[in-house]
Amino acid sequence: MAENGKRPIRLGMVGGGTGAFIGYVHRIASRLDGDFQLVAGALSSRAEVAKESGKNLGLADDRVYTDFAEMARAEAAREDGIEAVAIVTPNHMHFAPAKAFLEAGIHVICDKPLTSTIDDAYALRDIKPANGAKFLLTHNYTGYPLIRQARELVNSGALGKIRVVQVEYPQDWLAVEAGDENKQAAWRTDPSKSGAGGAIGDIGTHAYNLARYVTGLKTSAVSADLDAFVPGRKLDDNVHIMLRFEGGAKGMLWASQVAVGCENGLQLRVYGEKAGIEWRQDNPNYMWFTEFGKPKQLLTRGGAIDGTAAGAMGVRIPSGHPEGYLEAFATLYSQFAAVIRGDGAEFEALLPTLEDGVEGMEFIMAAVKSSQDDSRWTPLGR
Amino acid sequence: MAENGKRPIRLGMVGGGTGAFIGYVHRIASRLDGDFQLVAGALSSRAEVAKESGKNLGLADDRVYTDFAEMARAEAAREDGIEAVAIVTPNHMHFAPAKAFLEAGIHVICDKPLTSTIDDAYALRDIKPANGAKFLLTHNYTGYPLIRQARELVNSGALGKIRVVQVEYPQDWLAVEAGDENKQAAWRTDPSKSGAGGAIGDIGTHAYNLARYVTGLKTSAVSADLDAFVPGRKLDDNVHIMLRFEGGAKGMLWASQVAVGCENGLQLRVYGEKAGIEWRQDNPNYMWFTEFGKPKQLLTRGGAIDGTAAGAMGVRIPSGHPEGYLEAFATLYSQFAAVIRGDGAEFEALLPTLEDGVEGMEFIMAAVKSSQDDSRWTPLGR
Amino acid sequence: MAENGKRPIRLGMVGGGTGAFIGYVHRIASRLDGDFQLVAGALSSRAEVAKESGKNLGLADDRVYTDFAEMARAEAAREDGIEAVAIVTPNHMHFAPAKAFLEAGIHVICDKPLTSTIDDAYALRDIKPANGAKFLLTHNYTGYPLIRQARELVNSGALGKIRVVQVEYPQDWLAVEAGDENKQAAWRTDPSKSGAGGAIGDIGTHAYNLARYVTGLKTSAVSADLDAFVPGRKLDDNVHIMLRFEGGAKGMLWASQVAVGCENGLQLRVYGEKAGIEWRQDNPNYMWFTEFGKPKQLLTRGGAIDGTAAGAMGVRIPSGHPEGYLEAFATLYSQFAAVIRGDGAEFEALLPTLEDGVEGMEFIMAAVKSSQDDSRWTPLGR
Amino acid sequence: MAENGKRPIRLGMVGGGTGAFIGYVHRIASRLDGDFQLVAGALSSRAEVAKESGKNLGLADDRVYTDFAEMARAEAAREDGIEAVAIVTPNHMHFAPAKAFLEAGIHVICDKPLTSTIDDAYALRDIKPANGAKFLLTHNYTGYPLIRQARELVNSGALGKIRVVQVEYPQDWLAVEAGDENKQAAWRTDPSKSGAGGAIGDIGTHAYNLARYVTGLKTSAVSADLDAFVPGRKLDDNVHIMLRFEGGAKGMLWASQVAVGCENGLQLRVYGEKAGIEWRQDNPNYMWFTEFGKPKQLLTRGGAIDGTAAGAMGVRIPSGHPEGYLEAFATLYSQFAAVIRGDGAEFEALLPTLEDGVEGMEFIMAAVKSSQDDSRWTPLGR
Repeated sequence: MAENGKRPIRLGMVGGGTGAFIGYVHRIASRLDGDFQLVAGALSSRAEVAKESGKNLGLADDRVYTDFAEMARAEAAREDGIEAVAIVTPNHMHFAPAKAFLEAGIHVICDKPLTSTIDDAYALRDIKPANGAKFLLTHNYTGYPLIRQARELVNSGALGKIRVVQVEYPQDWLAVEAGDENKQAAWRTDPSKSGAGGAIGDIGTHAYNLARYVTGLKTSAVSADLDAFVPGRKLDDNVHIMLRFEGGAKGMLWASQVAVGCENGLQLRVYGEKAGIEWRQDNPNYMWFTEFGKPKQLLTRGGAIDGTAAGAMGVRIPSGHPEGYLEAFATLYSQFAAVIRGDGAEFEALLPTLEDGVEGMEFIMAAVKSSQDDSRWTPLGR
Repeated sequence: MAENGKRPIRLGMVGGGTGAFIGYVHRIASRLDGDFQLVAGALSSRAEVAKESGKNLGLADDRVYTDFAEMARAEAAREDGIEAVAIVTPNHMHFAPAKAFLEAGIHVICDKPLTSTIDDAYALRDIKPANGAKFLLTHNYTGYPLIRQARELVNSGALGKIRVVQVEYPQDWLAVEAGDENKQAAWRTDPSKSGAGGAIGDIGTHAYNLARYVTGLKTSAVSADLDAFVPGRKLDDNVHIMLRFEGGAKGMLWASQVAVGCENGLQLRVYGEKAGIEWRQDNPNYMWFTEFGKPKQLLTRGGAIDGTAAGAMGVRIPSGHPEGYLEAFATLYSQFAAVIRGDGAEFEALLPTLEDGVEGMEFIMAAVKSSQDDSRWTPLGR
Repeated sequence: MAENGKRPIRLGMVGGGTGAFIGYVHRIASRLDGDFQLVAGALSSRAEVAKESGKNLGLADDRVYTDFAEMARAEAAREDGIEAVAIVTPNHMHFAPAKAFLEAGIHVICDKPLTSTIDDAYALRDIKPANGAKFLLTHNYTGYPLIRQARELVNSGALGKIRVVQVEYPQDWLAVEAGDENKQAAWRTDPSKSGAGGAIGDIGTHAYNLARYVTGLKTSAVSADLDAFVPGRKLDDNVHIMLRFEGGAKGMLWASQVAVGCENGLQLRVYGEKAGIEWRQDNPNYMWFTEFGKPKQLLTRGGAIDGTAAGAMGVRIPSGHPEGYLEAFATLYSQFAAVIRGDGAEFEALLPTLEDGVEGMEFIMAAVKSSQDDSRWTPLGR
Repeated sequence: MAENGKRPIRLGMVGGGTGAFIGYVHRIASRLDGDFQLVAGALSSRAEVAKESGKNLGLADDRVYTDFAEMARAEAAREDGIEAVAIVTPNHMHFAPAKAFLEAGIHVICDKPLTSTIDDAYALRDIKPANGAKFLLTHNYTGYPLIRQARELVNSGALGKIRVVQVEYPQDWLAVEAGDENKQAAWRTDPSKSGAGGAIGDIGTHAYNLARYVTGLKTSAVSADLDAFVPGRKLDDNVHIMLRFEGGAKGMLWASQVAVGCENGLQLRVYGEKAGIEWRQDNPNYMWFTEFGKPKQLLTRGGAIDGTAAGAMGVRIPSGHPEGYLEAFATLYSQFAAVIRGDGAEFEALLPTLEDGVEGMEFIMAAVKSSQDDSRWTPLGR
């Protein structure tokens, strides 16, 4: 039960069977604030896995599906059917279920990137959801309170006109060839499941989305140099991109799965005419804020800071007691719950949308194209 | 529903009504892994608050109580009665409900310190729980995976014989007189509700427990100097203690509510003959481990480290993605759930017990006595 | 007097009069280890400033010059004439004195970048120094012991084949238009004195040199995007560059004088197949070294590390006692002194050379050209 | 030659022969700003070492002494005799030379602690220096610019009334028994050379002095627990002390030579009614300053901070370019040079004095006595 006395929203899940990672994360996120209750799932396309997974999660037998399309139909027909569904499959399996559930009038919570192809992304954008079904893209890092505060600082003009944006997301887990037993690695390095981008789709889009989310700047073009360093790898595992934004700001984006010593080193730095901000995901409860000519200030999540309405949303416990990745993820879930219930107007502008997902796909495609074209500056979109 | 297919344990709560802090934390902790479902509560002794709080939390009307004793009787009598209860009241209201529920055969999850008086603590220890009802003391910092790993490193002999233990817990939220509207401050600075200790009871016991939990050293005596710096304050807000352990190790403990600039700066440093470890709660996913004559190593939660069975328990997501205070708290809940279900033998030694609570009270009393006696070395206990 | 019983080398200085910054730094560096004694100078082209500056520095009247050419002639003719000269003028005044002193058989210590034009750089390379006069380019960051150790780690194969190099040097001191009274800013933003590059020449070359120094990788091409964000500024104040190295490694270089909140944030990160290193200049006594699949190690200057001959050179005091910028600078001076005396063979490969200076100029020119050519990949050199 | 046109002061040295550590540090410190020139020395009591050491340092043969008393006489008689002497011998050899040179009218720069016995300290205080000879005690950490600024912040009232002082100085270099070849360890662990204190004299006095220097608080009593953890060690290697200051402030001091993983972890934290400061010696160019209810500010050496006259003294290079231990040490030297020359009035209050040295000895004696007396609160002095 939610803390605010609201009935939990009935949730289904597509993907996320035994051994999956991100489905587990989505389930915790859905539970943490009590706003959702998982009641149905097409957790795997393999019947046995689906069944066992459903049992482990306490689903009723008749709500364990092996086919998402059937699930969409059946749940839409039930009086107590799911109101929302979380899609946590590999990229190439986002489009079809998203379409099915939206058209069935069921709200969709979809992992990123939006799809595996740009055509799918555009097609999804053109869908007509039934019953006003809504869409949430889980660019989960946008749920960190200090990222909300960073966005608000930019919006308020505290940084002045933005000049430089440095964003990076280095990891090292794919620095060597992953064995077949590594399910996470297997589909992420397979173009038929991931799409045209490897690191750029898996983590580069997170970095890109974060820069866009905080600064609000529109991208005019990218110049990219993508590499697959591990022998035999078919998709990029290191991404170097220069960014040009409308209005003249410039940026750099680095994403890597081969940066030995980096775990999930997502970092955003934004410099304007008047001030700069610096934030790291691996210690996300702190953010540097420096006004020109003044000492650096260490802002803390929910700490001693001036009126930041957006930042305050999603703070559960006092500053100095760390919240992390799961709380940020849960904030997306609970704020989307409010939107679904019709009492979350103040959150609508804060949650990543299908449109953000389309732009993420355009970013991937532009970067891949630029890299193939000797890093020529390439605009986003058709 | 728990991820492991187990039915959630039916949970009640005493205290934690609207406006309370730690009750809210307990509820999130109970939900996070899906191992508990809140179904009953004596959330406030004020009927109106109890009723409204119960409604907000979705409790059935007949399971909203204003009296914990009645709740214990009624729930014990129900077929679908609560199996466990969380006691989240101010210190002076721990003893009576803990006694009532244990004697009713209902498992107790109790916030720290155990009680407000040493006599209550001893009395609680002498209770005979019905039906093998178990007890968990929420020294929540023991739930951090790296604290588990630190404990295991000590146990394994990696540090050699321990020589020096430095532990501290500075805050600043009581650096000025708190207004009456601050409920958290009000009872914590009131001897009739907190007991004989202020900062020492609220945070000093956490620090002390953490040092004991990780090192396993037994305390032989303490030399304390307690102060109440804020004018008019009746309980200590700064705690300086020297520690002597059996076997010759020495320690220092500092707890403060007036250290301006500190949020929840709990820090533990342990130095042995062969190696040292250093850990901070405000960035809890990292721990320094240094073997003599070798470079410092930064261990990460669930990261590249050698076989640490204990440390691995409670890791939900990959290293580099931060977990925090709520996850550590939730780990106590979910491991206690396993103990309750009878499949948590490996957790029993890891969870803080009633006996730990008694020692915490003895620590408070010894420190208060030593301070009153010009810091004379004072042993714990009767 | 040097600590090793060697007679100090007689030193002259060109530039560095009252109010200059880098000349002062060179003088401290020359004194710190006792290997040099300043005895002559053409400290300013303005006679009055030269005279007063010389007096303040205790130079004999007849060794205070206003013209470097006369100084070269006169000192070369004296029995007790200077043996080496430090050239610390703005960039456009490096070439002529360097040529004059080298041809006079006097060793040259020259600030970076080598010259203000690429033609001057090539011309200087073609000079025939008299009497085997040697040349030191003060890329001072190469003097940090941990940079030496990083280089040795790469050379030893500890990192395996290098894949990714991330280097950056953000500052903020030119984030707003500097007033005329700021001598340091004035010439650095004036193309007639700095050359074709602004930030790229002043700090970008340091970053580039550091990456090259540590990795030994040869650059095949750069793709650059240079900006002058401050209105009216004629030279770049923000530099975005992608790097391609021979053998397939890739890199990014960011240099900025408008990154509000950054002081001298020079940072180098190198990732190879087997390990990664990360180092920051603002806390230069520490370096991260991580082998794949193992915990991060924090190496300390002169600390608990395995045989690093190069790293050990230049460590004066025990680890934990910080050395800084001036010590690194002094290390270049004292090791160059050893080279001059003929007993510094082990240092020769470690000191930045005229050839490094030529490459630095080629880097500036290639970046400027690439930026003018819409970031086309551009090789270095003619 | 000093940068300010002043003639260097002629300096002698007692101790500091080949293989010594602190003598080398003093020499660098004396050279760095050009204010001293080493011209004489009694570098060792062993004639051969003295001779070789003098030769290595370029001393004239007739100014290489083996006896400090003869040196005092001879140098005082020379027209070009030394004006100041640096005493860098083990503790038990401070008193006699200090007395000799002061009575010979030669300024004394003496390493800490002042002497090896309290009687020597008092006796030295009662000396009548000839010709107004002055005394500098090299509590070198007081030379760090941010320590000066911390002191000024306290003096200015920015922190309000001080409540709590936490100071510590952990090392690990004596965590195991040192071999005889370790000269530094040998005399420091020998009561006949160090005096009654081990760690407390070597590093505890530094920590104590720093706390006193910054806060200006007077100590009313100490409660100490000293240990020698390494088997066979005769002097303390771990120091736990509680401090009571006049006016009610309280403190803790920890010094250790057995804290594995700590190099020179000197740290000072001061908390007042209005603000707190936190500083670490191993990254000394940064200091936290937090006003109650406001974000933490990271002050940088010479950085964006409000009028701190004291802090500005001793800053040589721009913020972001680190200065370290040697620069702080050199600041004591150069400011003492100004005092000697009669133009350093503004430095007099900033430099550690003979009186500070007496108090340091009283601190050692009180702590040793308290520890022997079961940590009884013990006042300083006779």
